[in-house]
Amino acid sequence: MSKAIFYHAGCPVCVEAEQGVLDYLDKSKITPEVVHLGTDQDRIEEAEKVGVKSVPALVIDENVYHINFGASLADVKR
Amino acid sequence: MSKAIFYHAGCPVCVEAEQGVLDYLDKSKITPEVVHLGTDQDRIEEAEKVGVKSVPALVIDENVYHINFGASLADVKR
Repeated sequence: MSKAIFYHAGCPVCVEAEQGVLDYLDKSKITPEVVHLGTDQDRIEEAEKVGVKSVPALVIDENVYHINFGASLADVKR
Repeated sequence: MSKAIFYHAGCPVCVEAEQGVLDYLDKSKITPEVVHLGTDQDRIEEAEKVGVKSVPALVIDENVYHINFGASLADVKR
């Protein structure tokens, strides 16, 4: 089972990507965790370390896929 | 069954996204078609019409998800 984390910040682009892409992932291969960086600021450092530059982003096995552009990680920080 | 088209141009970012993301799509919900715009230039207009700006891009039911950035559509045109 691969590990996948979907980082978002509640922005419209994020919500659209979450609904559009996450629904189509094969849950027999992958169990996506959804992390809202706007409310879960403690996870921002972890996202940065793996290479997330903007949200929404899907990280599968340490590969980062930025999906469209909602907000930069800098803008998500309070 | 939803329709999905993965547009790419053979670039390294495209290949990585194809291997990393397409493998995890639920094939019971979606049957992805892979289109290489570099070799299949006739499909560029169709991609532009639906809103593809760069490759790699995954289009699911007319929603466009640009995944990272490999090349602009303008650069793919011969």
